[in-house]
Amino acid sequence: MDFEDILEELVSGAPDAQAATLMGMDGIPLACFSAGGVDGDIESIGVEYGKILGEIVKASEVLRLGGLVEVTLDLEDVVVLMRPVTPEYFLALLLKDTAMTGKARFVMRGSVIKAHRQITE
Amino acid sequence: MDFEDILEELVSGAPDAQAATLMGMDGIPLACFSAGGVDGDIESIGVEYGKILGEIVKASEVLRLGGLVEVTLDLEDVVVLMRPVTPEYFLALLLKDTAMTGKARFVMRGSVIKAHRQITE
Repeated sequence: MDFEDILEELVSGAPDAQAATLMGMDGIPLACFSAGGVDGDIESIGVEYGKILGEIVKASEVLRLGGLVEVTLDLEDVVVLMRPVTPEYFLALLLKDTAMTGKARFVMRGSVIKAHRQITE
Repeated sequence: MDFEDILEELVSGAPDAQAATLMGMDGIPLACFSAGGVDGDIESIGVEYGKILGEIVKASEVLRLGGLVEVTLDLEDVVVLMRPVTPEYFLALLLKDTAMTGKARFVMRGSVIKAHRQITE
């Protein structure tokens, strides 16, 4: 199973999911997958929010609140879920703003495990 | 009802809440309230994550994903919920890592409305 397969499985399995990316904290994507077939948006989203994710990780270390497990950005038009996969890579999932995120979170946890295995093997 | 009352009501009403702050995006607190009575931690948390909140707002404008409604940071030791109150101020709520956040989100929405009224009056 390659990175694109992991993302496709995630977007298909998470209700109201639109797109996903597996990206380096440096903003270089390993893979993108969009339900609509246009990956430009999810790549930009990953790059912009990925920088912020790195800052959250750093701030959380300074504040001694433990490692980052998950970030949820609830915006007017979309919901973005992000999870670190390794210290260098993270997974971002874009959902409709009306999405119930419980199932999406569950599916995403499985995707993180698969991506982690693929990256570290 | 002043700002501290709003925060005290929020921390008392949200299950597993530990502390809250109403803070400027510039990192200057309007008020802090801690269930344990020590406000230092929640102030530091507000300052560090407040900077990041400002960056999320800017990135979301660049990406045209609509205004920011809520940010959830799920960390190993705590959960942090943040909501903009006005373009200049936000509310942050610190919860135990085991907290069920549904009720907390509900109570927090009410606190945002009260704080908004207090700030803009």
